[in-house]
Amino acid sequence: MLEKEKLVKSESIFEGRVIRVKLDTVEVVQNGNITTRELVEHPGGVAIVAINDEGKICLVRQYRRPFDEIMLEIPAGKLEWGEDHRECGIRELREETGYSAKEFVYLGEFYVTPGFCNEKIHIYLATELVLGEKDLDENEFTESCEYTFDELVDMIMNNEIKDAKTVIGIMKAREYLNRKNK
Amino acid sequence: MLEKEKLVKSESIFEGRVIRVKLDTVEVVQNGNITTRELVEHPGGVAIVAINDEGKICLVRQYRRPFDEIMLEIPAGKLEWGEDHRECGIRELREETGYSAKEFVYLGEFYVTPGFCNEKIHIYLATELVLGEKDLDENEFTESCEYTFDELVDMIMNNEIKDAKTVIGIMKAREYLNRKNK
Repeated sequence: MLEKEKLVKSESIFEGRVIRVKLDTVEVVQNGNITTRELVEHPGGVAIVAINDEGKICLVRQYRRPFDEIMLEIPAGKLEWGEDHRECGIRELREETGYSAKEFVYLGEFYVTPGFCNEKIHIYLATELVLGEKDLDENEFTESCEYTFDELVDMIMNNEIKDAKTVIGIMKAREYLNRKNK
Repeated sequence: MLEKEKLVKSESIFEGRVIRVKLDTVEVVQNGNITTRELVEHPGGVAIVAINDEGKICLVRQYRRPFDEIMLEIPAGKLEWGEDHRECGIRELREETGYSAKEFVYLGEFYVTPGFCNEKIHIYLATELVLGEKDLDENEFTESCEYTFDELVDMIMNNEIKDAKTVIGIMKAREYLNRKNK
């Protein structure tokens, strides 16, 4: 039978700029066992599938420290704790690509790794783009590039694109547009 | 210009059963700035899209502490540090659903949240299933259920399914089978 676990005690391990780490002691209700759960708290983020007038999607290449790798991703950013995700998405798209969008449609949220982390990422589809100026953070360096849906789905299936929000954003946006245009 | 960051110093913050937390000090090569990066290390996991003889996909409902929520997910498990992901996938499918698969096809890997965490999840497509006995861990409780691809894609688009590995597994498996059957 499925039951929620009961929290016995919560210990704060680390408070960073991006994440907080906690060690919770819980009771497993079904058998009365006491065990611990490691938790990473994160404010969540927003990722944007932005399609330009040629039908191409805007992506950014950037360095990612955990893999020591340069990765290809859709534009995205971290929420401030409590920030509205639509406002954040509009800001991040402009900062990372220079684009503003006249149409900004919500495609839902996903949980990146619900076993130990509470990070949610919200996805938006941005169309009718108007180009302005980029505005990156001081220690943020990116390169912009553009691909068609067909190219991106091939890159997902060939395992060239590995970032979860990019795979989910592209696949959901394609399905959304296929259903809309039927 | 894109450059990898240079590691200056790495401090261990926490060593848990599931995750390790580190605080790296790095040099941003482009401007010489020194900054810190919070890192969560995770051994990675395997998730399985298992299709039974009726064409339905096997899912499990389970409690997830970070959201205090019962979630619908494809079967999955954590790798032991250094474990072969194919072996892990075969074992986890059997433990969580009781199924063994005669066909076990690799659909690639994804990075759950590459901004701060090095967790990779490998995805397999399992078909020609043979039912045996489940074998859950002591503090693991799940409920099995089955859905068609059409039902699952509707649930993804309606935001009823939020788990990243489940969204990616279903969308990649459907695309793989569509291309194969063309």
